[in-house]
Parts: sequence; C-alpha cells; structure tokens
Amino acid sequence: MSNQKITPRKQNYAQWYQDVIQSAGLAEHSPVRGCMVIRPEGYAIWEAIQRDLDLRIKRSGHMNAYFPMLIPQSFLAKEAQHVEGFAMECAVVTHSKLENGHDNQLEPGGPLEEPMVIRPTSETIVNHMFSQWVQSYRDLPILMNQWCNVMRWEMRTRLFLRTAEFLWQEGHTVHETRKEAESETLRMLDTYADFCEQMLAIPVIKGRKTNKEKFAGAVHTYSIEALLQDGKALQAGTSHFLGQNFSKGFDIQYLGRDQKLEYAWTTSWGVSTRLIGALIMMHSDDKGLVLPPAVAPQAIAIVPILNKKQDDTDIRTLIDQLLKRLLPEKAIKIASTDRDSIEKYIINENTNQQIVVDWRKYRPGDKRYHWEKRGVPLRIEIGPREVAARSCMVKRRCDNTQASMQIDDLTPDWLRDQLASIQKTMLDKASQFMQSNIRHANSYDELKHILKEHGGLVRCFFEPNDEIEKKIQEETKAAVRNIPFDQNTSIGRCIYTNMETSTEVLFALAY
Amino acid sequence: MSNQKITPRKQNYAQWYQDVIQSAGLAEHSPVRGCMVIRPEGYAIWEAIQRDLDLRIKRSGHMNAYFPMLIPQSFLAKEAQHVEGFAMECAVVTHSKLENGHDNQLEPGGPLEEPMVIRPTSETIVNHMFSQWVQSYRDLPILMNQWCNVMRWEMRTRLFLRTAEFLWQEGHTVHETRKEAESETLRMLDTYADFCEQMLAIPVIKGRKTNKEKFAGAVHTYSIEALLQDGKALQAGTSHFLGQNFSKGFDIQYLGRDQKLEYAWTTSWGVSTRLIGALIMMHSDDKGLVLPPAVAPQAIAIVPILNKKQDDTDIRTLIDQLLKRLLPEKAIKIASTDRDSIEKYIINENTNQQIVVDWRKYRPGDKRYHWEKRGVPLRIEIGPREVAARSCMVKRRCDNTQASMQIDDLTPDWLRDQLASIQKTMLDKASQFMQSNIRHANSYDELKHILKEHGGLVRCFFEPNDEIEKKIQEETKAAVRNIPFDQNTSIGRCIYTNMETSTEVLFALAY
Repeated sequence: MSNQKITPRKQNYAQWYQDVIQSAGLAEHSPVRGCMVIRPEGYAIWEAIQRDLDLRIKRSGHMNAYFPMLIPQSFLAKEAQHVEGFAMECAVVTHSKLENGHDNQLEPGGPLEEPMVIRPTSETIVNHMFSQWVQSYRDLPILMNQWCNVMRWEMRTRLFLRTAEFLWQEGHTVHETRKEAESETLRMLDTYADFCEQMLAIPVIKGRKTNKEKFAGAVHTYSIEALLQDGKALQAGTSHFLGQNFSKGFDIQYLGRDQKLEYAWTTSWGVSTRLIGALIMMHSDDKGLVLPPAVAPQAIAIVPILNKKQDDTDIRTLIDQLLKRLLPEKAIKIASTDRDSIEKYIINENTNQQIVVDWRKYRPGDKRYHWEKRGVPLRIEIGPREVAARSCMVKRRCDNTQASMQIDDLTPDWLRDQLASIQKTMLDKASQFMQSNIRHANSYDELKHILKEHGGLVRCFFEPNDEIEKKIQEETKAAVRNIPFDQNTSIGRCIYTNMETSTEVLFALAY
Repeated sequence: MSNQKITPRKQNYAQWYQDVIQSAGLAEHSPVRGCMVIRPEGYAIWEAIQRDLDLRIKRSGHMNAYFPMLIPQSFLAKEAQHVEGFAMECAVVTHSKLENGHDNQLEPGGPLEEPMVIRPTSETIVNHMFSQWVQSYRDLPILMNQWCNVMRWEMRTRLFLRTAEFLWQEGHTVHETRKEAESETLRMLDTYADFCEQMLAIPVIKGRKTNKEKFAGAVHTYSIEALLQDGKALQAGTSHFLGQNFSKGFDIQYLGRDQKLEYAWTTSWGVSTRLIGALIMMHSDDKGLVLPPAVAPQAIAIVPILNKKQDDTDIRTLIDQLLKRLLPEKAIKIASTDRDSIEKYIINENTNQQIVVDWRKYRPGDKRYHWEKRGVPLRIEIGPREVAARSCMVKRRCDNTQASMQIDDLTPDWLRDQLASIQKTMLDKASQFMQSNIRHANSYDELKHILKEHGGLVRCFFEPNDEIEKKIQEETKAAVRNIPFDQNTSIGRCIYTNMETSTEVLFALAY
C-alpha cells in the first residue's frame, strides 16, 4: 500500500497537481511523447462526464455518429485559416506498412499518394460528408456529435490539461439561416455551462473570444472560462459559429425555399478530457482528490476498522445491515477478483456508481487515507466502538466534517440528501472563490499590478486588437479570456489605448 | 423522401447488403480510403452494443482505461510473431507537422526520430505499462478494458465487416498463474457468446482457432463463429491466451508467493463494429434491416395515416392517449428541430431507446416503408378507421405479422412482452438456420462438394496443419473456422491425410 506524500499547494502547485493525480491513480505519462495513459479511476470520471453530457446532447436533438480519424492533407487546406491554425501541430501519416530495411531493421514502406493527418478536429471531413448529404432546406438542420480521440502535437504537456492526444466530443451542425446557426452556437455554450455547474460544481463565465483567440476558421468563438485555485483561468469548453467559411470551402449548398442555391451555415463545439484537469484543480486539497458526488465513481467507501486480535463477526454483521439499508434492491455485486478484498456494489446501473467496502487487512489510517486521496465523497467507518452503539462515523470529504450516526437512521433518502448537500457545498465554495477573485482594472498598470499580486480574473475596458493583445501577452503572460456576455452598458476607456470603448473583457493567466 | 429499391438477396447478395445499409442510413464509404462514416442510425446500434457489453465487462470485475493510440515502432517489434502479423497493414506516422514546400504546397515536416504506427491493437503499449504497474503477486490480477478505434490497412473493404479503421473494445489482463489466465480467456469468450445470443439474437459456435488462424503473438486464440444468411461464416469475437509471450517481450515480472521472480500470464479479447455487419446479415430481409428489440434504437414507430383533406384532430387525440398508455411517467421528449415533424420520446434513460411518432405529410406507404427498411421492431398504424374503433394496427417487423388491437389493451407490460417475444422469435429462427446448415463431411471430396452445393459450416475430422490448411484454402477458399468445444469423443480419419485423429473442426467460407 503506497503512502506517497502529496506536496502541499503552497510549496509547489504544479507538483501538487501531479501528486494528486498520481495518488488517486487517475493518469500518467506514457512512453509515447505527449500522450497520457488514463487509468481506470480517471477513466471512470470521464465516463461519468460522457454519460451525463451525452444525454444533454441527445435531448436537444443531436445524434452521435463516427467519422474517419484520418484527414487527407488536401481537406485541411480547403479553409485557409484552418490549415494555418493546425498545420504546425499535426501527426502526419505517410506510409501504410512497416518493412525490413537496412540491417534488417523495420522502416516505413508503402508511401501514400497523399499524406494524411490524424484529426486535430473533424470540421473538414465532417463538412465534406455534409456537402453530400445536403441538397435542400428540407435536409436541414443536421445536428451531429462525435465522441472520439484527437491529436495535436504539443511540445509542453500536462496531464489532462494539455496532451498531444486527448478525448473529447465535437458537435457539428448545419443550418438554413445565420440566425439559427448563431442560436445553436449559444445553446450549446449554455449546455456546457449548465453541465459544468451542475455536474462538476464548477462555475464558469460565458463570453466571446477576441479575434486573436478564436478558433482557426471560425467567425466567432464563444467560451466558458473557469478560475482554478492558483488564480489561473482555464477554457473549459468552446462553441464556434463558423458562418459560411466551411460551407464555402466544402461546397455545402442547399436549394432554399425560394428555389435558389445558398451556402449553409455551420457550427461546431466541444469539451474534452481537459475538464478532468479543471475538476482536479478546482476542488482538490492537500490531502488529494475531492470529487463532486455527481461524477464520483464511488459514492461511499465503507471502512471497517478491524483489529487483528479480535473477531470481526460483529463488524461484518453490522455492515451487512448497513448495506441492506443503503443498497437498492437491484444492486449488482461486482465479481471480485481482488486479492485485497474490496467489495464493490453497483448502486445505479445507469451511472455505474458504486458503494465499496474495504475489507483489507491494513491499518485503519492507511485505509482511511486510501479513500481520502481518491476523493470519495462519503466515508463510513465502523469499528468495535460503533458496533456497541449500532452507530457509524460518517465523514464528508468536501469539508472534512464528520458525525456519528445511528445505523437505523441511514436510508436511501438520507444518502441522496447527503450527496446533494455535498454537491451544493462544493459549488457554493467554488462560486465564492470565483467571485472574490474577479477584480477591476482601470489602467494597464493596474492590470499588471493585479495580475502580479493576486492573479485571478481581471475585468477592464479594452478594445480587442490582435497586435495589442500580443504585446500585452508578451509583457504580462496574460491574455483576454473572453468578452463576457454580462457587459455593462457604460462606456469607459480602453486600458491600453485610452480610447473610448464599451467593451469589457476578462484578462487572466491561463492554462 | 428517398425510395431507393433494395436489390433482392437472390439476385446479388453483396449488393443487397450494401443496399440495406444505405436504405437504413447506417453507414457509408468515406473519401479516406478504406474508412467508413458511421451515420447516426448505425452508431446508435453500436451504442446499444457498447452499453450492454460494457456492463457485462464491468460486472465481471474489469475496469475501463485509455491508452495512447500511437505505438512506437520498436514496441511492435518486441514480440516476433506480433510484428510479423501486423507490419504489412500499419498506418505509419513519420512527421509532426505540415509545412510549405515546393510551389507553396503543403508537405510533411518535423520528421520523428522513431516512426509510430496507429494501433492495430494495443497489446504492446498496454503490456509496456503493465510492466511498470506489476511488482508483486499482490498487484495481480489486472483486469482492464478499452473502447477505442484501431487501424489495419485493408485493401478490400466492406462496410462494418472489414474496414481500415474500426471501433472495438479490447480487454487486456495479467494473471499470476497459467490456469487463471486460461480461465479468464474462456470466461470472456462465454461473455461474448451470451451477449451475441441474448442481445443480437445471433447463435454462435465456440471453439479454438488452429495454429494457422490464431492471433499474432498468442499461444491460443478462441473464437465465436456465426453463420450468415449466404452460408458464409463470420468470426464475431476472439479471446486470446497470450501465455508469457508478451510478458517476456515487455518484462512483466512479479515477485511470487515463494519470493521468486516470475513472468506473468496475459490475455486479450475483443469484439468490434463488425458485429453490426453480422447483425445485418443475420436478420435482414429483402425489405431491409430487421433489428432485435434489445439493440433497436427505436422500439416502436407510430405511423398516423393522415388524409390531406380530412381534419386529423381525432387521430392526434387517439395517439396522445396511446402515448400516455405506453410512455413511462419520466419519458423525455427530444427537442424537435426536425422540419419533418418526427416526434421522439426516450422511454428508457439508460438505453436511450425511443418511441417515435411520424407526423410527416407523406403518403402512408412511404412512411410505412421508411420505418420498415430501418428495422424498427414494432410499427403501430392509426388511421380514420382505427379512430372509429379505438383500435390500431400492430405490425411486427421480424415476421411481418400484424394484428388489430384495442388501444386500451396496450400497456407497458404488453410492450415488454411483445419485444421479448420478437427477440425470441429472431433467435429461434437464427438457431434453426444454423443447425440446418451444419453438415458432416467424411472425405475431402465431400467437403468440397458441400462447400460448393450448400456452403454453411462443414464439420469433419481434420488434423490441423499450417501447410495443409493453406492448400485447402487455395483449392476451396474455405478455412478452418475453429475446433469447436463440443468435440465428440470418437476417433475418425483426417479428411486430408486419412490418418487417425480425434479432432473435429468446422470448415467454411468466411468474411
């Protein structure tokens, strides 16, 4: 049983992040440069994210599909900004086999006529297919989504937050009118924001990206931005209004109601495994991972406090009774092949969420720490003292509170309420943190000062401009996160040019 | 509304298969050679397969994880047979970006130090990670699974059955003893067989592959084989006992209970989107797709028979009442953006299975055919005649039977029973077909005769031998599908060598 220490946040935040991931067994770096291995405990969080978000996507009329992972080089080049945005970071497939070469070593053989890239995103191949499916306005809208892996060759990687290969969903839609496409773009941004708040307990700020920060090929990019514990912002999801850029590049034309051929209007939107990075950085503490109940693979870890010298029959009996109270009638016990005897019960076939009982013969402190660093929302401990009182010790991971409770007071309703209360506690804390870390700057000096002293989000009047943004980023490392939707109606002076503007933006250091 | 005809099976079986897929909108070829686009109706079937099989995999103690899609060339070479098996069909990544070259055309740039292949399967990268995770027998077993895309460069492709890129799950496990690994291999084969029978209504024959047909790097490969309508066999799933081949190649050693270092025993097993091909070929008919209820994205299509000249208020009222009877309290209506007004209700949040109501203003025959060719298990038609009688016409897709029923007799229980009955009817029919197409051959001539006259599965005594199998395949196109588990205890003479043997095998032409 490994008891590797977690570096405190104050000492080294980046190392703390790495330690939390390692001690919870979420992921690790792989021998393939820039690519991570998502271990079971980490992947289970991704499955929880997928399950809920997928239903939201389906309820709003979208259907899932699957498109090829390889993109012909010529496709990428059909939208000028798009190829410029991605050409520098593409994994390129040039051959179709390995063959024996010099010194009997393997080398690539079967050169392809046209190189292909592994999708960095699928707009080009999807829009090519759309061009064949769309003839008339009657074929519109097309509302599609894809769950898949994508690849962007990154030089500096960080588990979940920035890796060469990552998992995501990418929605792609085609519409008859500009208005309809714009409203779809914003609808999906709202879907992401609701999802982050309700499932991940992460509050976000919705807004539009500046021209400099938008997606390669988009007319407008919208984002949701979260603020993490170290005062840096993280783009948690994006939604792009692509206008007619791709429909012109790929010739998606439809016969309109007026019998004229028109170019369609398209959108795309995505969130990725990066959300797991946001989740970790948002809620975890110096003891390790803290998971919101809505996405926690285990809802409860029951920890029997066993004494080697004593018979544990009484503890087993009490835990059996507790399980009977908490498990639904149809609870499924997972076939145990674990030599360490951790019993697992699926309490919800839909979400696969479990209650686990840790019968291992380890020291109580070690077992306690095991589930603590994995972020399980509730721990229930039962030892000889509890047996005598028919009670148990209930510990909440999110705020480290604990209470002794009578076994007979634990019901499925109690469990549901507890989990809802933990979820709310976590969202409230995160919201307070964000609110208290939005500061206003009235001048460029003030912006620099706040960024240096506090970090966080800095709100100020600023007229977006590619050149100036580049300069500010060079000088401060901070970029415009977005132009938040909740603009004031007032007029102010741009902190950089001192010209009048009505645009307020959020600056921050970011991941 | 497209009414493209489906070629009858007798006329051209291959074209029929293609037509069924196209008319149901399941998939199509993409501009990326050998790769398919899985359209929403097809992907929904894959999601149904995933959902059920995933729970079976989880219940038996396996957890999902995710490993990098790129495999360093050197990894592939660590197991001699493995590299030989896959080197000829690998997509090779050699560069990390696209840059401007001659004539301002894009060309690959940033050559990699070591080429990588897109995973044709993940044994090598997974076993590399296992070697780092396994130290002691206490770390065993490791029971993992991965849902992902893989790539094998195929020259001749056929939608779902054989494509360069396909989707699958691949299980990978590590064990302390040979016996445990062997029993895991067979346990997962059983899981696949049960799944095929219960969910896909496809009976299969379990057996072991001959040496010639086994997986590159395995000690033994086991398969489940299905028999399709045209008398050809299809390998529907495989499970591999890898022995210590990969643990030696990747140095997966553990400290045993006797304090000695030992090589671990590993397995792998997988099924793929090929199952959708099996499903189509097993059950569909000249009218199009026929889906078993267990994996049908839509359980019922309700088709109002509308008359342009008449008011349809009465029909709407009756259908509202019918929906109230059939829909669970928590049924979710999917946001409609469909200009053609097809209402969709999710009747099971877990499976996402739906009831659809087709309010489109098309001719009744066209609407009927629309759902028929998509394989929806039950159709309920309601026109003016039914309104008068408070009845409806219920049509079963699987056997084309129909019955008039009173609306008030339709209940959730009735629906559940109907779907179960359809599922059983389909399995029974498929089982009868398989049983009546297993023939015995006592000589090589007889084998050839049966293959030519009937196709199907031919059972005979045969002593597996790489050279002879190769010859037989050249002469007959047939191969040994597997050595079925239900061997007779008798001794016979090998149909090729005439030597005594106790081994009976199944020959067949195959996909």
